[in-house]
Amino acid sequence: MSLEENLSGYKGLALQVLQSIGAEIGDLIRIVKGGRVFEGILIPRSEYGDDKHIVIKLRSGYNIGVRLTPDAKVEKIGRGEKPAFVAPPLPEQNPALPKVAIISTGGTIASRVDYRTGAVRPALTASDLYSVVPELADIARIDAQILFSLYSENITPAHWTIMAKTVAEKIAEGVDGVVIAHGTDTMGYSAAALSFALQNLPVPVVFVGSQRSADRPSSDAATNLTGAVLAAAKAPFAEVAVAMHETISDTSIVLHRGTKVRKCHTSRRDAFKSVNAQPLARIKENHITMLTEDYQRRDPSRRLVVKPNFSDKVALVKFYPGMDPTIIDWYVEKGYRAIVLEGTGLGHVSNRLFQSIKRAVEKDVLVAMASQCIWGRVNMNVYDTGRDLLALGVIPLEDMLAETATVKLMWIYGQTDNPEEAKQLLKTNIAGEYSTRSLYTVEENKP
Amino acid sequence: MSLEENLSGYKGLALQVLQSIGAEIGDLIRIVKGGRVFEGILIPRSEYGDDKHIVIKLRSGYNIGVRLTPDAKVEKIGRGEKPAFVAPPLPEQNPALPKVAIISTGGTIASRVDYRTGAVRPALTASDLYSVVPELADIARIDAQILFSLYSENITPAHWTIMAKTVAEKIAEGVDGVVIAHGTDTMGYSAAALSFALQNLPVPVVFVGSQRSADRPSSDAATNLTGAVLAAAKAPFAEVAVAMHETISDTSIVLHRGTKVRKCHTSRRDAFKSVNAQPLARIKENHITMLTEDYQRRDPSRRLVVKPNFSDKVALVKFYPGMDPTIIDWYVEKGYRAIVLEGTGLGHVSNRLFQSIKRAVEKDVLVAMASQCIWGRVNMNVYDTGRDLLALGVIPLEDMLAETATVKLMWIYGQTDNPEEAKQLLKTNIAGEYSTRSLYTVEENKP
Repeated sequence: MSLEENLSGYKGLALQVLQSIGAEIGDLIRIVKGGRVFEGILIPRSEYGDDKHIVIKLRSGYNIGVRLTPDAKVEKIGRGEKPAFVAPPLPEQNPALPKVAIISTGGTIASRVDYRTGAVRPALTASDLYSVVPELADIARIDAQILFSLYSENITPAHWTIMAKTVAEKIAEGVDGVVIAHGTDTMGYSAAALSFALQNLPVPVVFVGSQRSADRPSSDAATNLTGAVLAAAKAPFAEVAVAMHETISDTSIVLHRGTKVRKCHTSRRDAFKSVNAQPLARIKENHITMLTEDYQRRDPSRRLVVKPNFSDKVALVKFYPGMDPTIIDWYVEKGYRAIVLEGTGLGHVSNRLFQSIKRAVEKDVLVAMASQCIWGRVNMNVYDTGRDLLALGVIPLEDMLAETATVKLMWIYGQTDNPEEAKQLLKTNIAGEYSTRSLYTVEENKP
Repeated sequence: MSLEENLSGYKGLALQVLQSIGAEIGDLIRIVKGGRVFEGILIPRSEYGDDKHIVIKLRSGYNIGVRLTPDAKVEKIGRGEKPAFVAPPLPEQNPALPKVAIISTGGTIASRVDYRTGAVRPALTASDLYSVVPELADIARIDAQILFSLYSENITPAHWTIMAKTVAEKIAEGVDGVVIAHGTDTMGYSAAALSFALQNLPVPVVFVGSQRSADRPSSDAATNLTGAVLAAAKAPFAEVAVAMHETISDTSIVLHRGTKVRKCHTSRRDAFKSVNAQPLARIKENHITMLTEDYQRRDPSRRLVVKPNFSDKVALVKFYPGMDPTIIDWYVEKGYRAIVLEGTGLGHVSNRLFQSIKRAVEKDVLVAMASQCIWGRVNMNVYDTGRDLLALGVIPLEDMLAETATVKLMWIYGQTDNPEEAKQLLKTNIAGEYSTRSLYTVEENKP
């Protein structure tokens, strides 16, 4: 390892100062500046950082960036030690238990923070898991695999393809269920993607994340993971789901259908909500209760159909007052095949967009309408604006989430290039993305 | 009126058939087709409609489009009558009551449906209002004005300017409060806009809408309007607010702060929610209860400051997996001054966008980050992605709504052209758009 690697991210003045005192990432550093003393572990910097700050992790656990002013005095007061992640031996596996594959794609759930350096590292070998969540040994035999180590905001449709194929391999090997550990940021999108890509599932595929890392006292990682493994091993459904806290307490885990779920809070443990649908199931005291009658039953003899391809020529465009209509033209010129408009209310956009939408439809770009209200159902028959948009060829997305609709259209244009076929697929309820219209909805509509 | 105007929107075959039987909009029509009989009032068609359907309003109140197949027989069975909207005389106004100006911009609240033709018409003269909601005469002396008759999805920043100036005129005339009747689709955006444009308010400015039109039995129009007028006349606060149903029942109206409110359901009466904040006040049985201590008090001697200008060079861009980074470049090339990114989780986007963001910031385009989670607070110090984005110069929007942030930046660039000043204004809490960080937020954050 070169000295630069040992000072990862530092450059210019900061690098020079740290080299001059022989410091490496992980060493204990003291900076005295303007009469104040900062002591902590030297941690790596982002490649986009400047060359004027040294970042240390204070004893409190918080990181602080100290600016190198001319009066600052930096010294090394202790040597870092190599992190020791020695996993305990695997527990004896009970051959009577169901077999669950855990595929890790990254995110907080799949990591533990090295508090020495602040670095986050994937820790999802089977023995790591048993060491962090020993109760898993009572639920299932675990086969753990690290597929990616990605923050989920960096996951793209190409990763969904690999995820879908990997799940299919595990199912071909005969597991009783699959768990996918995933960053929470885009977990809803990935769950929707696999809902379309993995059809006719014989067993459950359960996404799981955590809002706080496993080595924090308030972490939701262990409870969520235990719930996800239990669902994968024993739940009566065979669909793609997301397992997360139902409330901020640890008492229940809820399983959301992959096409109806959305992250609705930046940080709470119960951030994930089923939108316009009941969740699939609830887990309380290791007991699974189904919350709907309308689901695909587990059936190991069912033959999985894998359709893992996605197109990247699908855009999600959120409408706002004053929006430039030529953004639509730009997507058309770039060769996009479909645009999901996140309109207002029952499914509206300004009439200033009509000409651009007309041109898009004439060029066989599929334009579909969801609502930025998030809850409720698009109904484009109520007002002139909606009727005009329907007449222009815009397809209403009923109660489907805009995010799910975007993923679905990416998936559709991964299956076909034919606009008419695409339209038919969009209107077909493939993975519970449309909920049946509830009886009171008519009364809820405007005049 | 020409025959074509009497058959507004009809063309080709449909126009020909209707002309041949001498039918006009509003006439009672019978269509017999395939053994079925459709009877109803002939209603106008959208200009984007085809030439093969005739649309009638059935006795049930629903509209139906009947396709003109070769076997269809169309006849006129009754003559339409001119609509009679004869307003009753104005009630005697009690000079002891507060004076409230109602400014109508359109939308369901400001209209009533002509059930003869299906046409929606503004009906907000003072006498119309008293005839629809007679209890208003007990609350305030009403001065009603129709400013626009727009579906709110067609409202642009230029309309906000006119609205702000009109409110200022009414306040200069000495009213005790102003009500703005508005379509619900973009009412949250407009309320945010006026929150920034009207500073140092002496009296309340209350937006009001309805989710169902006044002539439907389940309408929320009268209760919302009564609540809004009561708040304008008597509430102790002097801020921009939105008055809507608190629940689906008619028992309480809630007043949301203009910068913290969002339409969260396509059709429910309680669609509007305060996000990351308590509502300002609740009205129950004509009694106003403040729900927060933190508000600007009504003070008629306070001198209003009007800053009504908005820039249209501000974009709202919602991130999704696979998003094309060059969309950012496109906005930069188009001369945009600011971009609000609606990122994931605590305020993230894919690292594939970093280069485009870097270029934007280098060209003095202000890039700010909100969360598509909607609830919770952006915190870009937790993960590498956030820290990288901060290092690139992206400004975190704390717990501000993405919609409010977009409006605020439009307003900011209507005030200044200086990027540094713009940044300072963005970070300043001008109209309650930032909530104070609550104590438990630290615990809620990731490691």
